[in-house]
Parts: sequence; C-alpha cells; structure tokens
Amino acid sequence: MAGDGTDQRALQYEQTLMYGRYTQELGVYAREEAARLREERGFKRSISERTRSLELLQYDQGRCAKCRICILQCQKLLISRIGEDWIFLILLGLVMALVSWAMDFCIAVCLQAQKWMYGGLESNIFLQYLAWVTYPVVLISFSAGFTHIVAPQAAGSGIPEMKTILRGVVLKEYLTLKTFVAKVVGLTCALGSGMPLGKEGPFVHVASLCAALLSKFMSLFGGIYENKSRNIEMLAAACAVGVGCCFAAPIGGVLFSIEVTSTFFAVRNYWRGFFAATFSAFIFRVLAVWNRDEETITALFKTRFRLDFPFDLQELPAFAVIGIASGFGGALFVYLNRLIVQFIRKQKTINKFLMKKRLLYPALVTLLISTLTFPPGFGQFMAGKLTQKESLVTLLDNRTWAKQGIAEEFDYIGHSHEWKHPQLNVFITLVIFIVMKFWMSALATTIPVPCGAFMPVFVIGAAFGRLVGESMAAWFPDGIHSDGMIYHIVPGGYAVVGAAALSGAVTHTVSTAVIVFELTGQISHILPIMIAVILANAVAQSLQPSIYDSIIRIKKLPYLPELGWGHQEKYNIRVEDIMVRDVGYVTLNCTYRQLHDALMSGHLKTFALVESAESMILLGSIERSQLQALLTQQLGRQRRLEFLRERALSEKKQVNEDGGQKINQEVRFQISTEESSFSPPRTLSPKPLKPALKRPSERSTEIPTSPQDSGIALKNLFCAHPGTEGMEEEPYGEDDMTMREIAEWEEQQLDEQVNFNNCKIDPAPFQLVERTSLHKTHTIFSLLGLDHAYVTSIGRLIGVVSLKELRKAIEGSVTVKGVKVRPPLASFRDSGTSSSETEATEIHKLWDLHTSLSIPREHHPSDSDDKSH
Amino acid sequence: MAGDGTDQRALQYEQTLMYGRYTQELGVYAREEAARLREERGFKRSISERTRSLELLQYDQGRCAKCRICILQCQKLLISRIGEDWIFLILLGLVMALVSWAMDFCIAVCLQAQKWMYGGLESNIFLQYLAWVTYPVVLISFSAGFTHIVAPQAAGSGIPEMKTILRGVVLKEYLTLKTFVAKVVGLTCALGSGMPLGKEGPFVHVASLCAALLSKFMSLFGGIYENKSRNIEMLAAACAVGVGCCFAAPIGGVLFSIEVTSTFFAVRNYWRGFFAATFSAFIFRVLAVWNRDEETITALFKTRFRLDFPFDLQELPAFAVIGIASGFGGALFVYLNRLIVQFIRKQKTINKFLMKKRLLYPALVTLLISTLTFPPGFGQFMAGKLTQKESLVTLLDNRTWAKQGIAEEFDYIGHSHEWKHPQLNVFITLVIFIVMKFWMSALATTIPVPCGAFMPVFVIGAAFGRLVGESMAAWFPDGIHSDGMIYHIVPGGYAVVGAAALSGAVTHTVSTAVIVFELTGQISHILPIMIAVILANAVAQSLQPSIYDSIIRIKKLPYLPELGWGHQEKYNIRVEDIMVRDVGYVTLNCTYRQLHDALMSGHLKTFALVESAESMILLGSIERSQLQALLTQQLGRQRRLEFLRERALSEKKQVNEDGGQKINQEVRFQISTEESSFSPPRTLSPKPLKPALKRPSERSTEIPTSPQDSGIALKNLFCAHPGTEGMEEEPYGEDDMTMREIAEWEEQQLDEQVNFNNCKIDPAPFQLVERTSLHKTHTIFSLLGLDHAYVTSIGRLIGVVSLKELRKAIEGSVTVKGVKVRPPLASFRDSGTSSSETEATEIHKLWDLHTSLSIPREHHPSDSDDKSH
Repeated sequence: MAGDGTDQRALQYEQTLMYGRYTQELGVYAREEAARLREERGFKRSISERTRSLELLQYDQGRCAKCRICILQCQKLLISRIGEDWIFLILLGLVMALVSWAMDFCIAVCLQAQKWMYGGLESNIFLQYLAWVTYPVVLISFSAGFTHIVAPQAAGSGIPEMKTILRGVVLKEYLTLKTFVAKVVGLTCALGSGMPLGKEGPFVHVASLCAALLSKFMSLFGGIYENKSRNIEMLAAACAVGVGCCFAAPIGGVLFSIEVTSTFFAVRNYWRGFFAATFSAFIFRVLAVWNRDEETITALFKTRFRLDFPFDLQELPAFAVIGIASGFGGALFVYLNRLIVQFIRKQKTINKFLMKKRLLYPALVTLLISTLTFPPGFGQFMAGKLTQKESLVTLLDNRTWAKQGIAEEFDYIGHSHEWKHPQLNVFITLVIFIVMKFWMSALATTIPVPCGAFMPVFVIGAAFGRLVGESMAAWFPDGIHSDGMIYHIVPGGYAVVGAAALSGAVTHTVSTAVIVFELTGQISHILPIMIAVILANAVAQSLQPSIYDSIIRIKKLPYLPELGWGHQEKYNIRVEDIMVRDVGYVTLNCTYRQLHDALMSGHLKTFALVESAESMILLGSIERSQLQALLTQQLGRQRRLEFLRERALSEKKQVNEDGGQKINQEVRFQISTEESSFSPPRTLSPKPLKPALKRPSERSTEIPTSPQDSGIALKNLFCAHPGTEGMEEEPYGEDDMTMREIAEWEEQQLDEQVNFNNCKIDPAPFQLVERTSLHKTHTIFSLLGLDHAYVTSIGRLIGVVSLKELRKAIEGSVTVKGVKVRPPLASFRDSGTSSSETEATEIHKLWDLHTSLSIPREHHPSDSDDKSH
Repeated sequence: MAGDGTDQRALQYEQTLMYGRYTQELGVYAREEAARLREERGFKRSISERTRSLELLQYDQGRCAKCRICILQCQKLLISRIGEDWIFLILLGLVMALVSWAMDFCIAVCLQAQKWMYGGLESNIFLQYLAWVTYPVVLISFSAGFTHIVAPQAAGSGIPEMKTILRGVVLKEYLTLKTFVAKVVGLTCALGSGMPLGKEGPFVHVASLCAALLSKFMSLFGGIYENKSRNIEMLAAACAVGVGCCFAAPIGGVLFSIEVTSTFFAVRNYWRGFFAATFSAFIFRVLAVWNRDEETITALFKTRFRLDFPFDLQELPAFAVIGIASGFGGALFVYLNRLIVQFIRKQKTINKFLMKKRLLYPALVTLLISTLTFPPGFGQFMAGKLTQKESLVTLLDNRTWAKQGIAEEFDYIGHSHEWKHPQLNVFITLVIFIVMKFWMSALATTIPVPCGAFMPVFVIGAAFGRLVGESMAAWFPDGIHSDGMIYHIVPGGYAVVGAAALSGAVTHTVSTAVIVFELTGQISHILPIMIAVILANAVAQSLQPSIYDSIIRIKKLPYLPELGWGHQEKYNIRVEDIMVRDVGYVTLNCTYRQLHDALMSGHLKTFALVESAESMILLGSIERSQLQALLTQQLGRQRRLEFLRERALSEKKQVNEDGGQKINQEVRFQISTEESSFSPPRTLSPKPLKPALKRPSERSTEIPTSPQDSGIALKNLFCAHPGTEGMEEEPYGEDDMTMREIAEWEEQQLDEQVNFNNCKIDPAPFQLVERTSLHKTHTIFSLLGLDHAYVTSIGRLIGVVSLKELRKAIEGSVTVKGVKVRPPLASFRDSGTSSSETEATEIHKLWDLHTSLSIPREHHPSDSDDKSH
C-alpha cells in the first residue's frame, strides 16, 4: 500500500497546482480505486462483524429487545414512506440556506474586522498598510493551505466539475464530506479576505456536495436514495439551489444552473429545481429578516428606478453598445484567465518553485492585489476601500453621479463618495476601476482556493455600464425624450444592463438577465437587458469558450464540447469519417489465448463480443474487467490448486482402483460452482463506494481478482502490487508445482474455449450507422451520456466511436484541422441511390458478407473501409 | 378519387366536432397520403416540364441569358450564405410581432364596435340586448364556419398538437398555410367577440405555423432549411416566440414553451428561443410606441405597487392559501372542461344533431354566455361590461376597493366602478364573477374555434386573488406590520399572485410566475408568487393532468404521457414485463411467400430483419412499405409483362434456333436493372411533401407502387382504388395471360428467395435489454423520440416495445391496473447473481441458443418467457 499512497499523493499534487491537470488514465485510476475498495470492504466487513457481535451481546442483556426492533422497523417504514422527493428538496434547501446565511455572516464579520483594523490604525500609514495587506494574505494563505490539506478538489469554481458529473462521469472525490468542509471553510476565508472573488460557482458545488451527502445519509434509511439516476436528478436540482440561495434568485438560479451544467435538460426535473431553490431563497431571506437586517423580504441589491418611464427608445443603441463591448470584454476575460494559467504552467522554473512553496503563489497574488487597492495609495483612484458588495450597491445607485461632467454635484450618500476623487472626475475613477479590477479578477480566480468568477465580473460589468450611463447623462443632461416631459437618464439602469451583459458574456448564459432582475427587484429594464445580454453572448460565443468550458479544457476533464452555433459542416461529417475501424473484439467461440492476446493488445475499457471473426455480427459488449476475471479464473491459483488436488486424488484413485475416466467432467462441474462464488455477494451492508471514474449506467467494475491469483501469464495484465505479495494464505493445500509445470499447465488452459457463463455482458451496446451525421451523433452521445458507441452495418460491427474521437472531430471541424474530413462530394455521390436524409445502408454488404462467409479470412480493417466507399 | 374525397371529408367532420377524435389508423392515413402525393407529384412534374419548355423558349430569344444565370447563382450563394439561424429567427420574430400587433388591433376594433353599438342603443333595452348578443354570435359562428371550411385543424389551442409534433410525430396538416390563415382569421374573430377565450395557446400554434412556412419558403433557396432536425429545433424556438410576442414576455415565453411542449430540452436551443422571443417582444412593444399607444416600452399590464415594502412576512399564509385553493380550482377547471366535452360526445342524439348543424353549438354557447353577461341584466353583478383586458387592469389595480367592507370609499377611476354595484358589495361581485367566469371559460374553450384557455384562467385567478386580498385588507385595515410604520395591504399584489397560481395550476407550469413578472413589470412579489405557484402545481398535478395533456387524451393524439412525480414503482417494472413477444420479422433468406404472409398477418409499420428464424439475431428493421415494394416488384404487372415478352421471345428463338438456356439469367439481369428505376428519382424539383404521419427520422414512405401494378396476391395487401382502374396504359405489349396463368405464375414467383438488394434497411434500430426499467425506457423513448424499440438478448431478438405498450404501462402503473406487473420479488431473485443496477443478461441463453441451433424449431413466444423467469 506504500506505493499506492505515493501515487495518490502525486495525484493530489497534480490537482492542487493552480488548475490541477486531469491526466490520470481512466483505466488505471479505476483499477487503483477498485483495489483500494476491496481492501476497504474487507476492513468494513470486519468492523461490522465486530459491531454485530457487540449488538448480540446487548440483545442477550436486552430488556425489551423485541420492542426495540419493532420500533426501529416502524421508524424505518415511516422514513422510507415520507422519504420522497419533496422532503429531500426541503431539507436541501434548508441546509443550503443556513450554510449560505452563516457564510455571509462570517464573511461580513471578516470584512468588518479588516475595516476596523484599517480604521484603528489611521495614525500610522505604514501600520495601516501592513494591516490592510497582511489580513487578506493570511486569510488566503490559510484558505489555500486548508483546501490543499483537506481536499484539493475543493479549489476553484466547481461548476466545471458539476458539468462533467451531470454529463455522467462520476468524479467521486468531488462529492465527499471532506470536500464539503474544505469548500465551505476555504470559501468563507477567501471571500472574507476582500479579494475580487465570487461565491456563486463554489456555491453550486457546495449545494451539490450537500445533496450528495444528504442522499448518502438518507440512503441509510434505504429506499429510493440508492437509485443513481435519481441522484443525478437531485444533483441538477442542487445546482439550482446553489445559485438560488447565493443570490436569493430562485428563477435565475434554476435557469443559470441549467444553462451552465446541462446539455439536455429533463423538463420533469424543472419543478424540483424551482421548489428547492424557492424554498432555499425564501429561508435565506427570512433569516435576514429575523436577524433584523431587513424589514421584510426584498431583493438583495434593491434598486429604485422610476417605473413609469424606465428608459427611452432612443437609448437602446447605447444599451446595444454595452452588450457588444461586454461580449468582447467577456471573451478577453476568459482568454486572460487562461493565459495566466498557461503562462505559469509553461514556465518550468516558476512552476517548480511554486510547486514546492505551495502557499507562495496565493500569497504573492494577494499581496499584489491588496497593495494596489490600498486606499491611501493607488486605491484612492479606484474606490479601493469599498468591498465588492458596497461597490455594487453604489454602482446601481439611482442618482446621476456626474451631471454635465461636473463632479461637484455629487450626492454624498452611503459609500458613493468613495468614487469621487478631489483631483479626478468620476469617469476616470470608473475607467481605472474597470481596468484594474479586470486583470485583478482574472488573476485572483487562478488562486487555488474555492472561488468563482461570477461576482467580480458582475461588478466590473456594472462599473462599465455605469460609465456608459454617466457618459450618456453627461451627453444628454435633460434626457432624450422629445415630447415636453423631461425624463433624465438613469445611469443605474445602464449599470444593471452592463452587469448582466458582462457576466452573461463570460459564462455564455442568457439567464444572467433573470438573475439581475431578482437581484435588483426590478424588471422594468427587461428589454435593454435582454438585448444587451444576447448581443454579448453572440459576440463572446463566437470568440472564446465560456469560462467554465475554458476551465474544463485547462483541467482536461472528460467532457464533450458543445457544438458551436451555425456550423453547418456538422451535418456533412459522418460517423464513418471519424470512427476507429480497428475495434477490439472477442468472438463467442474464442479460446482463452485469444482473450489474453486481445487484452494485451490495448487499453480498451470494453470489448465487443461478435459471433465470429468472419461474420462480425455484434452480440454485445464486455468490460475489460470481466474478461480479466474470466482469465484469472481460468489461470488462477485457486483453480491450479484444485487441479493439483484433483490430480492427486485421481492418482490416489488410480493407485487404489485403477479407474478415473470421469474426473475431467467432475472438475469442470466443481469449477462452475466455484465460479458462482466469484460474483459479488449481496449483503445488506451499506453499499460499497463507487469506483472513482465510472459511468453510472455501467455495472460496477469490481474485479473479483487480486494479485495473488495471478500466475505467469497474468503478470503482464495486472500491475503487480509488491506490498501484498507476502500475505498469501493457502487453504487448498501446498502449491508444489514448479514454474515449468505451471507454464505448461497454463499453456494447456489457454487453449480451452472460453466459457462466457456468469460473465456480465451488455447485450445492447449503443449502435450507430456509418451514415449518421456528426450532429446527430453528438446529440445522442450527450442525450444518453454515452462513452462509446459501436458502428454497425446490418448487424455487422465495422467500427467504434468514443468520446475521444467525437471530441476530436468537433474541435477539428471547428478549426478545420485535426480530423480527416470526408471529401466534400462524398455524401452526394452516395445519395445517388438513397435520399440524403436516410442513414440506411444498402444490403449489398450483407450479400457480400454472405458470399465471403464461405472463404474464411482475417478481419482486415481497410477491408470494410474500401467497401463503404 | 371520389371515395378518397368522402373519406377526407369524414375525417374533417371527425376533427371539427368539439375535440375531433384522432382515430385514424396511422397506416391507413399514411397510405392515403402517399397515394395523393403520387398524384400531386405527377401533376407538378407536368407543370414544371411546361415551365421548363417556356424557359427554353425565352432562352432562345434571350438577351444576355448567361448573365442572368450568373446573377441568379450569385444571388443563390448570397442567400445560402446568410441563410443562417439568426436571420431566420429575426424574420420569424418580426413576422410574429406584426401578426400579433395587427391581430390585437383588429380585436380592439371589434370590441370597440360592440361597445359603440351597445352605447348607441341605450334608449331601447331590447334592441340593446339584441345588439349585445347578436354581435358575438355572428362573430363566433363566422369563426367556427371559417375554421371548419378552411382548415378544421386550426380549432382549439394548438399547444397539444405542438407538443405532439415536438415529440417527433409529424402531424402534417397542422403546419400548412391553410391552417395558418384559418387560425389567424378565426382567432381574431373569436377574440373580437368578447367571449372568455385566450390568445396564448393559438399563438404558439400560429408561431409554429409561421416558422414551418418560413422554413418551407427559405428552403426554396436551398441550404440548411431542408434538414429536419433543424426544423424541429426551429419549431421549439417558434413556440417561445408565440408566447413571447403574445404577452411581450420573452423570458416567460421561453420557459412556458419549454415546460408546455418539451420533455427533454436541448440547452443549445435555448438561445434561439431567447433571441427570437426577445426580438419579437421588442418589435411588438415598439409598434405600440410608434402607434402612440404608449410613451415608451413598458409592460402590458403595468402595476405600480410600492417597492420598499411590497408585503409583510405574516401575509405569506394568505398567499399560500391562494396557492392551494388555486391548485384545487385548476384541477376542477380541467376536469370540468373534459366533462363538458365527454358529456356532449356521449349524448348520441345531441351529438348527431350537432354534427348536422355544425354552427349551432358555437352559436348556442355564445348566446348563453353573452346573455348572462348582458350588463343591464345579470352582467351588472359581475362587471359584465368589461372586456377581459379591462377587467384584468382593474383587478391588478393599486388601490384597495373595500376598506373595512365599506364600499363607499371606492375610488372611481378607470373602469373600476364597474365592480361596484349599488346593492351589493365588492366581495359578492367578485364571487359571482369568479363562479360565472369559471364555468363560462370551461364551456367557451370547447367551442371549435381557435382559442386558448390561458387568459380566461388568468383573469379568474386574478379575481380570486383580489377577493382574498380585499378580504385581508378588510380584516387588517391598518396592515399587519407591528413596528410603528403602517403598511397597508395591497390587494393588487394578491391578484397577481392568484393569477399566476391559477394559470400555473391549469397548465402545470411554474413559469407563469415569470410571465406575470413580465406582464406587470414588477418582480417585488417574487417569493409569494413562487410559493403560491409551486403549491398550486403540487396540488393540481396530484389531482388532474394539465389542460394540454387532457386535450391530448381527449383528442387521442399519439403522445407519450409523463411519468408522475415520485412513483417509485416505475423503477421496478422491467421492459420484459411490458414487451410484446410476438414480433413481426422477416428472415434474411425468406421467400416471397413468407414475406407475403408476414405482411398479411398484421398491421405493423416496421418489421425486424433477423438472420434466421432459429438464431433470431437482429440485423436491422425494414419498413412495411419497403417490403410491399419488394413484393410488388416481384409480382407486379410490369414484371409479368416482361416475363411474357421474354417467353414470347424465347419461344420465337426456340423456333428459330432451338437454343435458350441463358434466358433465365438474362431475365434476372434485366429485372435488377429495372429495379434501380424503382428507387425514387432524384430531381431538383421542390421536395415532395411528407406523408401525413411519419416520424421525421424515418425515410420517406413513398411506395413505388400503384394499384394497377397489383396482381391477385397483392389485391389483399393494397386497398383497391376503383376510380383509377380504367386508365391503364400498356407500354410493354398485350397482357394476354388468363387468370389461371397469372395465379400459376405468381405461385411460382412467390417461392423465389427474396432479394433484399436496393431495399432500404435501418441497420441499427434501437435496442433495449429485457432488464431495462420502465423509468429508463421512458427516458430513452422521450429523449430520442422513439416510436418502437426492439428488445434483444445478446443479439437475439426477443420482443418489441412500442409507444402503445409504454403508454399502457405508464398509465397502468399509475392506476395499478391494466398492466401485467412483474411479481414484486422477481428482481430480487434475479439480483442474486448480478447486482440490481446492472441490466446485463447472463450468457446462458446464448449457450442454450447455440445448443438448440442444431434442432430447427419454430420461434415460440412463451419459450423465451419461461426462460427469463
């Protein structure tokens, strides 16, 4: 287990560094996990046995033991009966609201403390600076350290991981209690430091963690909570709750979480999200009322724009300009963020140094940012004293800051005066704020602490909108409207539009508009906001991926990219252009030797089961682990020992009675009963944890094989676990075969035909036709969360498409390179005999096949290639 | 064609009557359509030939003909280049906004005219009554008549049909120009009559029609518009546009259309909906500004509730009560609506009478309703004078109508005084209004004119909310808040909550909340509204289907019902419990006789193609039409004539040269070239219309067969078209065979082996495993829009599940009858050998199969049944 441990630690290093790269091979990882799980299970079983015996002792002492059992059963029934969706959702909403509120409270206290320190040291500017800078550095360092030690997976936003998980890939370590603790504590500290970091993304993750833990907790009471597809549905609802209780924006939360995490959304999950998010937002706001922060339930950043004439039609071009500029800005932000990560990764010396001094990078970044925002220093030009919340409130202010460019008319209410500098006018302050915050936010979000980018971007957008609004107000001091009445321009409205547009551009979502309505409590600017958000999205989507997709690419998470909009060539690329023709397969009547060769030849996770190498009729698919188990059984030590015993017995018999014809059958019989004990025993103990990387629809990859089973031939297949070599136990007698004998015996065994009994076969793997378009393939893959699909032609296996090929094809077809694109007229040539929409194949090939069946031949990959053209 | 015509008329009768029952067998319908299409195509071809010849003439005269071709090509290129999504969406939005605005204008004029007539005849109450009653009766009768004559499909809401279409079933006649005209004109008249009818549902249909027609129009320029999956995506966007430009509510429109029409929603279509709906809503509101109706863009039913303290926390129970009561009310409305339809249908005498006098029912209903709302009569107690719009505006009014129950303090502004009756107080007026409008709306929506139920329900909900609000205001005259400040209760806020809750309950949607925000321009009541809507949904969904699902059931549209929430038994039912084991199949090496028998045996649309009756390995699926075409070719007149000619030739040859061994091969060869001409010729003419009922993913079912091809054996397969019998043309010479000779020849032909060349086979029909749960099956069916799926066990076909079985199983498992439910412990028993989540089958059966292969046997359905238990 020592080697295992270092492995894991190396993995952790890999993952904490800025954006931990997701480089582990799925297969390797799964195998390691499976090995660990086996150990754990054994451990657990021994514990449970111990507790059971303890219980038995108690029962013996027991007063009214039966009664207690009865009560327990009743309780169980009750819990399982009311253990329905809505109870789960209410619990989730409640917990998340409490978490959100408590966290907000802590963050507020932290920020207050910094202000208090800063204020108390006004006499000495150096001490003041020290306090201003040290406080966030300490908090961020603690956050980074804590996150690193407890659960390095908690760093970053969490939305990319949720997107991957909802796509169907279980990233187990992202949904543990440790991660929950690390995320909550780390996030509180990170936000308490006053850095330009957001709460939204991590909150989506926290809510999902909460849902996963709650599910696990509820599953103790049994019932429906063990169903995996249900758990995935609940995770989707949890994402909505995360956004909902972060901003008290239930509708926006539901929509944002859908846009950000899903590719296809089941409308029947819709109400779940609404229900939980509404409940959560409600409790979140009620807590504020009870805490006397508010008089009643209102929006978080309430605005008070006039209702009767929110804006003039002629102001719309300005809103459109905000939208387009935000689109470019959003794309730039994503690019900048990625650039920083890649720059630090590429610089090997920096990288090595930072790897060693893990907390140096966060501390340095924090130091830089907090130095620049030091209010008596450069911070005075960019309202550095204001926290994120305060600056947002001031930016959404009702009043005009600068009428006709004269800053003197400024209203000194609340914190707005921070924006006014004696030497500079408001415009310059805003420009400085926008520019500085822009790169600061992009930089700060690369720190390996739990943090999101939504809120910083939101504030920058608001500032940009405010800038445009103030300019408009200065340009048209009496408003634009021509018909008598004077309606002044409301720069706060522009700020709202800008906030929605920029955050929409960075995240590639339209629902930021709804979040903005719920945050401000006003919907009067609906059309400008919608127009700006859509324009920003159009621009940003054509330039850069969303921040979440960008992180997915940086982290190399196993995710299928979206099809861009309007790429018509996707309709022209066919599956046959991108599929892998060299499919790993086993035949129904193959020998163990062929099986062994197939396993040795590659690292495929699943093998196709075909009728025969000639017909290639696809019968199903088998997982690698199943085949390995088959081979292990055949060559395993147990079977060898049995063989020895049988041989000894028969020799004895032969000595005694000189008759032993039936032995072979008998051995066979015994083996087949032995086999059934290999299948995992169904106990009522809590379910084993799932292997790390596994599609939920697949059956568990627990390999009923351990290294001590492996003989010579198997040595190549399984990586040896040196730590466990010594602890062999020998229940079946002495293994007195020599190496040569073993090899001989194994050779003999390998020539037997494979018995596929008790081997789990997926009899209906997903099949595509070679004419299926890339567009449709993408749809099917993302709809069903597939990992790979076989390409068949009238029952005959001709290729396989996996996520990898698909990803390559999509990315290639966007950039028009990296993929062998079908010649442009190929589909026209084909469609001479069949209409272009059909994906049917002619029966020709089947006939060819049937005629060729008489001539046995090797399956040659280029063979079917030629035929399909 | 005479018979065909009456058939169609009968169908139309069937469809116009209240809720036309959708009884046509899919197969029959498709065949009729195909026959009609063939005729149409022939007609079109002759026209196109004529125009071509005309063009040729012009070219001969042509001055600079080449130049013109060049320009045309450039034009084409330009159009196809810019023929991208966003242009289509902008066009769609623009058209729909214009249509919506023009319709609103016409409706307003109609309602004005009625008021003017009513006002002008104030001297004579009888004449006044006559005018009040006649006007709507005439309009509704005209609307019903017009709809009936032009396109009976236009009657009703249209949302149920759109739901079905987006599910994947093409109801062709619902997306034609005729339907568009009928819907727009009929809807304008129906709404102009002042009946309690809505605009929303039909508008969804109108927008979809618009999108379909626009697609068809754009496809003239070629390009991407011919792609069917793209068109479906566009229809989804169109639904959003429909709601969006009806209420100027883009966000609510998108969400409502998703909830109402989709089961699974592709997030990548999201922006399409937002884009188009925003553009449409924008143009719609801009038109109002340009028309000087409004000063700037604002909400349709703008409210002016106070922002700083919209409601007190202690008012929440009242809002919850509104929600729950609305839930019951909504369920009652759906039930009442269905009851009325079913009552009229059941009463055979009434039904017959109404069938004859088609316009009587609408006229009678209108008469009844308008008599009861006659303002000097009973209408005075229920504000009968107000139009729907006016009553909604008054209901959402800011002020309190009745403080402490004293109606005297009433503010006489706008139309609010209509609610005040000298003898009655406001509460009684409101109660009467609610009760009367409730059944009136349920009755009115059964009239066969284009109409929706959303708006009437919305108004009733607002009235109910107002009632509760006024009661609360009377109960707490000084507001509830305890801390010094007096905040009066705002009954208008209650009205908003009630409107959202009741309409949400009737349609089973949560997004009515968003629509309400956008309609009123205020979001301050977000939490009460969300809570009420969710409660209303919870209650209504547990009692009744939504109004749209109810209509789907009444009309018997081919739609898959939703899984209810929290029905855990869905996870326990397996596909093997519901599948049909007697699958219609053809084998690869079958004879034409077997093919004929298979075709005769049932009405299956598709047949499975298996390797052989023994192995039952599924190779693909073939459509009925393809098999029919095969049979037609083999037994067709053309082939017979050829045979005759060949025979004559060979006889001649034999006479001449006494040598004719090679003939048989030659005939065969000639036939196979002949066959290729059977495949539909690929011309550049506009694409033929799709057959009436066809899944879009399937290839066209055009049967290259006409009645005169059919011999004796085919007579049974194709229904004879007596009208076309006489016009046979005989290009191949005389058909001088006697009936006996033909029969003999056919018998001979039937024994030949089927040549599946040139027959279109779907090589990858969707396959399920017998262990797949009902829940998963439902998901897959609705995700992929499947019609049927084969159930296989390791490549071997063992059953088939179609939409019908699934529907039965879902409805059965809800009511716990009608479906053979698997014994409760069956899955436990199975899971002894495999974990309960896996759906893998053991290889046993395959081994059984292989051993049994040596003994040829009939496929016996109960055989595999026994084995699987």
